[in-house]
Amino acid sequence: MRLHFLGTGAGVPAKERNVSAVVLKQINKNGDSWLFDCGEATQHQILHTSIKPRRINKVFITHLHGDHIFGLPGFLGSRSFQGGTGPLTVYGPEGIKEYIETSLRLSKTYLKYELSVIEVSDGEEYIEDGFTISIRQLDHVIPSFGYRLVEQDQQGKLDSEKLQSIGIEPGPIYKQLKNGEKVMWKGQLIDGHDFLDEPKKGKVIAIAGDTRKCAAVADLAYKADLLIHEATFGSENEKLAKDYYHSTAAQAAEIAKVAGVKTLWLTHISARYADGKETELLMQAKEIFPETYIAKDLHETDIN
Amino acid sequence: MRLHFLGTGAGVPAKERNVSAVVLKQINKNGDSWLFDCGEATQHQILHTSIKPRRINKVFITHLHGDHIFGLPGFLGSRSFQGGTGPLTVYGPEGIKEYIETSLRLSKTYLKYELSVIEVSDGEEYIEDGFTISIRQLDHVIPSFGYRLVEQDQQGKLDSEKLQSIGIEPGPIYKQLKNGEKVMWKGQLIDGHDFLDEPKKGKVIAIAGDTRKCAAVADLAYKADLLIHEATFGSENEKLAKDYYHSTAAQAAEIAKVAGVKTLWLTHISARYADGKETELLMQAKEIFPETYIAKDLHETDIN
Repeated sequence: MRLHFLGTGAGVPAKERNVSAVVLKQINKNGDSWLFDCGEATQHQILHTSIKPRRINKVFITHLHGDHIFGLPGFLGSRSFQGGTGPLTVYGPEGIKEYIETSLRLSKTYLKYELSVIEVSDGEEYIEDGFTISIRQLDHVIPSFGYRLVEQDQQGKLDSEKLQSIGIEPGPIYKQLKNGEKVMWKGQLIDGHDFLDEPKKGKVIAIAGDTRKCAAVADLAYKADLLIHEATFGSENEKLAKDYYHSTAAQAAEIAKVAGVKTLWLTHISARYADGKETELLMQAKEIFPETYIAKDLHETDIN
Repeated sequence: MRLHFLGTGAGVPAKERNVSAVVLKQINKNGDSWLFDCGEATQHQILHTSIKPRRINKVFITHLHGDHIFGLPGFLGSRSFQGGTGPLTVYGPEGIKEYIETSLRLSKTYLKYELSVIEVSDGEEYIEDGFTISIRQLDHVIPSFGYRLVEQDQQGKLDSEKLQSIGIEPGPIYKQLKNGEKVMWKGQLIDGHDFLDEPKKGKVIAIAGDTRKCAAVADLAYKADLLIHEATFGSENEKLAKDYYHSTAAQAAEIAKVAGVKTLWLTHISARYADGKETELLMQAKEIFPETYIAKDLHETDIN
C-alpha cells in the first residue's frame, strides 16, 4: 500500500502546491486505489504520475469547499473517456450528490461506468474492499469529515513443510486447512489453526478533512499507522487557525501524540509557507511529535 | 489589445495542452480583459502569466461541455479570494446560470464582487465596454456559440500643431474641437473635424466555440482581423470530425478564406496531434489560407 499526494495546499492553487487530493494506491490484491478529495486539476496532477484513473474505484470527499471538490466532475468524465468501465463510488457530505449530478447533467457528461454516490454522516461505518471505514464529523465551518480505514488482518500462511513432515501432501485438504477448518485425515482430526502462521495485522489509516484540533480526529486516528492531518498555519497564527476553523502544525502533532499514531503527515499548507517556510511548520510539529512529515505535491511513500 | 492562449487542447487535459481558455487582454483604456471559455485548471494556467483575475470583467462561455466550463467555479472563487471586487459578467448558453449557482452554493463559495450571468441565444447583440458583441449558434452536438466582437472606431487625434499654426493655443476650446464641435473663435467658425486625424478603425475579432464547418462562423468572422476556430482533427479524420461535430484544420481555413479574415488561429487540437504532429494540421490549413497560426498553451500575441 502506498500513499501518493497530489495536492497539498490550502484554499487556492499555487505554483508549489495544488489544492487537496491524495491517493492511497494498491489497497488490495486487485490493485484498487482510493482518492481522498479532488480539488481542481487533480486529473492534471495525475498526468505526472503512474496512477491510472480507471484503477481508482472509490473517492472520499471530506467536505464541499471548492478546493476539495472542483476537480471531481473533470476527474469523473476523464476516467470514462480514458477507458474506465469499472464501477466507482463517491462518499461525501450531503450535497455531493447534487453537485456531481448537476455538473454531469449540464455538461452532458455521459459516464461509461456505474457511478454510486453515498452521502455520509457522523458515526457511520462501511465495509468495503477488505477495509472497515469509520466516519466522524470534525470541527470545521461547514460539515467536514474524517475517514478511518482499518484493513482486515490478513490470514497467516499455511505451513506446508510442517504438513508434509507428518505426511500430508498438497491437495484439496490444504485449502480446507488454510481456511482454519478441522479435517479428518487417516482417522486423525487435523486442525488447520495448528498449521497457520500468525495473521498479518491490517494497516490503520486516518485521513482528516479540514478541521480545528478536535477529539474526533484523535478517535479516528487511535493507534493508527498513519494520520494525514491539515496544518494550514504555524503556531504564530493560532488565532487565525481558530477563526477560520483550521489547525496549526503543532495542534496536528498534539492530536497525533494523544492518538498514539505511528506517523503523522501534514498537508493543506497555506501558500504563506511557500519557498521553504514550511520547514517552520515541520519543526513546530516535530517538537511535539517527532514522527512528523510534511507532504509535498507528487510525493509518494510506502505505508509501513 | 493582446491575445493570450491558456488552454488549446480538446476534450481532456494533456501535458502539452490544457483544455479550452483564451484571454483577450487590455481590451480598452481601463485595461479590462475578457476570458473565453474556462476549462479545468484555467486558474492554474493564469499562475504562469501576468494576467490578474481581478482585471477580467467578462467571461464568455461558448458551450457547456466540461472541457470548457469545469474551471469556472474555481476561477470565480479565486478571483474573489485574490482581491477581485469589481463586477463580473458571465455570458453563456442556457444552463450556465444553474451550473454556476449550484457549484457556488454547495461549495459555500461567497464572492466579494457582483456576479451577473447572462444566458445568450442565437442572433443576440450586446454593447459593452466599447464593443458590439454579436452572438451566433454554431453546429455542434449541444448548443455552442460564437462571439463576434467589433471594437468601436477610435476618434482621430487632434492636430495641435495645426491649431497652434493659426494661433489657437491649448485650452478648453481644444476639448470641444476634439469632440468634433464647431466653435466661434475671434469671429471665425472653427470646425473640429478640420483638425482631427482619421478615426482609427476598431478591431474585429471572432471567437467560435466547438463546431462543424458552418456558415454562422463565416458570418461572425466576416472581414475580421482575427478568427479563432477549432481544429480538433486533420483532413485524414474528416469523417471523425463530422461524426463528433468538430472541424478539421482545413475546414477552419476554408471558413477563414470565405469570410475574408486577416488571420486565423487554430485551437482545440486533439491530443493525437501531440509531439509536433500539429504541424500537419497547420500545413493543411495554410494550403488553403496562408495566414494561419496554430495556438499553443501560454502563447501570447498582439492583435494587429
